[in-house]
Amino acid sequence: MVGAGQLARMTHQAAIGLGQSLRVLAADPGDPAALVCADVRLGAATDLSALHAFARGCAAVTVDHEQVPQENLRALLAAGVAVHPRPDALLHAQDKLVMRRRLAALGATVPPFAQVCEPADIERFAADHGWPVVLKAVRGGYDGRGVWLLDPSAGAERGAPVAELLAAGVPLMVEQAVPMRRELAALVARSPYGQAAAWPVVETVQARGQCVQVLAPAPGLDPEVGAGAQRLALHIAAELDVTGLLAVELFETLDGGLVVNELAMRPHNCGHWTIEGARTSQFEQHLRAVLDYPLGATTPTAPAVVMANVLGAVSPAPISVDERVHQLFARFPDVKVHLYGKAERPARKVGHVTVLGADMDAARGRATLAANWLSAGVWTDGWSPHDRGAGGAGCLTRW
Amino acid sequence: MVGAGQLARMTHQAAIGLGQSLRVLAADPGDPAALVCADVRLGAATDLSALHAFARGCAAVTVDHEQVPQENLRALLAAGVAVHPRPDALLHAQDKLVMRRRLAALGATVPPFAQVCEPADIERFAADHGWPVVLKAVRGGYDGRGVWLLDPSAGAERGAPVAELLAAGVPLMVEQAVPMRRELAALVARSPYGQAAAWPVVETVQARGQCVQVLAPAPGLDPEVGAGAQRLALHIAAELDVTGLLAVELFETLDGGLVVNELAMRPHNCGHWTIEGARTSQFEQHLRAVLDYPLGATTPTAPAVVMANVLGAVSPAPISVDERVHQLFARFPDVKVHLYGKAERPARKVGHVTVLGADMDAARGRATLAANWLSAGVWTDGWSPHDRGAGGAGCLTRW
Repeated sequence: MVGAGQLARMTHQAAIGLGQSLRVLAADPGDPAALVCADVRLGAATDLSALHAFARGCAAVTVDHEQVPQENLRALLAAGVAVHPRPDALLHAQDKLVMRRRLAALGATVPPFAQVCEPADIERFAADHGWPVVLKAVRGGYDGRGVWLLDPSAGAERGAPVAELLAAGVPLMVEQAVPMRRELAALVARSPYGQAAAWPVVETVQARGQCVQVLAPAPGLDPEVGAGAQRLALHIAAELDVTGLLAVELFETLDGGLVVNELAMRPHNCGHWTIEGARTSQFEQHLRAVLDYPLGATTPTAPAVVMANVLGAVSPAPISVDERVHQLFARFPDVKVHLYGKAERPARKVGHVTVLGADMDAARGRATLAANWLSAGVWTDGWSPHDRGAGGAGCLTRW
Repeated sequence: MVGAGQLARMTHQAAIGLGQSLRVLAADPGDPAALVCADVRLGAATDLSALHAFARGCAAVTVDHEQVPQENLRALLAAGVAVHPRPDALLHAQDKLVMRRRLAALGATVPPFAQVCEPADIERFAADHGWPVVLKAVRGGYDGRGVWLLDPSAGAERGAPVAELLAAGVPLMVEQAVPMRRELAALVARSPYGQAAAWPVVETVQARGQCVQVLAPAPGLDPEVGAGAQRLALHIAAELDVTGLLAVELFETLDGGLVVNELAMRPHNCGHWTIEGARTSQFEQHLRAVLDYPLGATTPTAPAVVMANVLGAVSPAPISVDERVHQLFARFPDVKVHLYGKAERPARKVGHVTVLGADMDAARGRATLAANWLSAGVWTDGWSPHDRGAGGAGCLTRW
C-alpha cells in the first residue's frame, strides 16, 4: 500500500487475518502504519524509482491516499505490477473536474459545475446558478481543505483566494452549493473479476468541513433511496472499472434526491464502522478486492452502529491520551477504541470509536460522549473536561 | 510479548487498535508474529541477556507460551520490569504438579494424582484408583504432547515410555483418567488492579489430543454449572494472583460435575472465537489486563459462535492454500478466516475459521465444512477434496 496513514494501519490489521503482511511505502518512519507494519519502505509516492523498488515482489499495489501521480501509477502498470485501483479509474478520485464530467455523462446527478480559469468565471457561474457557490481545488483537497463556500450576501470573501490560487497555478472549479438535508455515503467494493458488494448506506455527520460521525445505517432513509444509492455506487464502480473500494459521498437534497459530491477509491472514513459493525470490514474487503479474492458478506452485525472520530486535544492536553483511555474504558466497557499512533494536534483525526446497539439515538449518544472524552474538549464547541463538575474520574457526564 | 507464534500475531492485531505496537521476542524471523510486527527482537526466552535487552522500554512484558524459565522471569521482575502474569502465578501453568497441589488445596475438584519417580509408582496409583491412568510430563506438554493414556486392558503400552522418560530426567505424574461427557473451558481475565471479567463457558471439541473446535456458548450446559465454572475460574485467578488471561480447561463428568484439567495464562485456542464473537476479544483483553486498563465487555455478539482450527494439509497439498481460500470465500462469504503465516505440516495448526449464527448446529456444520476445506483432507479422517464428486470449484459438499 502506497502511503502509511491510519488507512494503511487498519488495512494491515485485516491483512494479518488473511495470512498476509502489508508492505507500506511511508513518507516518515513515524507514520501510523509504519509504527505497526513489519515491512516498511521509506519513500515518496512522487519518487518513481522508490515506487518501483517498493512494488517488487508485491502481489498487488494499492493506495491509502490520492496523492500518487498518474504517471507513476502508469509506469508501474507498464512494468507489469498489478495496480488496484488502476490509474484510469483512480483519476476520477484525483481530479474533481474529470469526475464531474464523467459522472454527468453517465447520467448521475451532480451539482451544476464549471471550470474556473479566471475570477470572472465564478461571477458568470453565479449569475446563471445563484449564490452561494462552492469553489474547489480540482486536485488535492480533503477534509474540507481545498473547498471554499463563497457567499457575498453573507459577507464571505470571494475574490481574494481565487486570484491567489490561480496565480499559484492551482486548477479550480466552481459548483452550486446544493441545499441539502444531510450527507450520505454509499460504500462498495469491486474485484478485477467483476464481483461487487455494497454495505448499507450511511449518514456522515459533518462539522467544520470534516466528517465527525458516521451513522450506519443512515437513520430514517427511505429504503428505495438507499437501494438507489447502492445501485448508483455499483454502477459507477462498474463504469469506471474500479478495483478495490469505492466510496461515493452524497448529498441528500431537501426533496429527498441524491447528488454525488465526491468519490474515493480506498478505505474511507465513512467505512470505519464496518470493523465491528459488518461481517466483513472495508479493510478486509479492499484486500480481497485488490487480490481478486471472492468478496465478503457486508451484513451489519447490529441494528445501529455509530463511528465517531477522535480528534487531537487542545494543546497542552488537560490529561494524557492514556489517562483518557483508562477513564473511557472504565465508563464504557463495550465501546471499541481505535487509536492511530499519531501525535495530537488540535482537531487532527487521531483515532475513532465504534458503538453498536439496538437503538440509533442511544448508540449515538454513547459514541458522542466517548469521542468527546477522548478528544478532550476539541470536538464539540464549548465542551471541556473541566466542565464536568463533580463527576470524578471515569464518570463521563452527558454534555 | 515473549514468543512470536500465532497468539502474539493476533495480540499484535489487537494492540494496533489500542494505539500500541507489540514488540515480540522471536526465536525465528519466520515466526507468525515476526512476519507482521514492526518491532521484532530475535532471541530465546531461555537467554536472560536477550530477555533483558528485549524488555528495555516495554510498558509490560507478557508471554505467548509457557516455556519461559521461572528464573528469567524473576530476574526481569527484580530489574523492575512489569511482568504479567507474574512468575509466581505462571508457575501454575508451567508445572502440572504444582498446579494440582495448589488447586486441591483451594478446594477445586481435580482428578486423583501422584508424582511418578519410578515405574512402580504408576502400578501403585492404578491399584488404588484403577486403570486406565493418564501419564503426564509435569512440564512442557501441550496439544496432547507429553500426555499418554495407559490402559493395559486395551493393550496400550505402559512400561516402556516411563522408563525412558525417567531415564531422560523428565519429571512425571500420573492421574486418574476421568470418565467424561466432554471438555469445557472457562476463560477469564484479571488486571493488576484486581478487576476481572469472564466470557461464557465454551465446549472444546478434541480430536487426537488436540482441540479442533470451540462451541460458544457450550451447547446445553446447565446455566448453574456454567456460572459455577466462571466462578471457579475467577476464584483461581484471584487466589493465584493471575494478571492477564486465565484459561481453565475442564472435564464435564458423566454426572455433570466439573474437574479441572489444565491452566493457561495467555491467549488460548479456546478463546479465538472472541475475535468476532465477543465485544472484546481475548487478545485485546489480555493487553488491557497486562497494561492495567479497565477490562472490556465480554458480551457475545451472536447466539452461536463456532471456531474451528485449520490444520496443515497432507503433503504435498492437493491444491495451494491460496486456491483453497479463494474457493472457501466463494462458497461462504460470511466465514471469517485467520491464517497464521505458518508453513503447512500435516495436522499443524495453521489458522482458524469463525462462524457466527443464530443456531449452534447450523453454525457448527458451516464451520466444519470451512475448516475441512482449508485443511485439505487432514482434519476429518477419510475426508478428501477429491471425494467431492461433481461439485466443482467453490462448491463445498457436506461430508
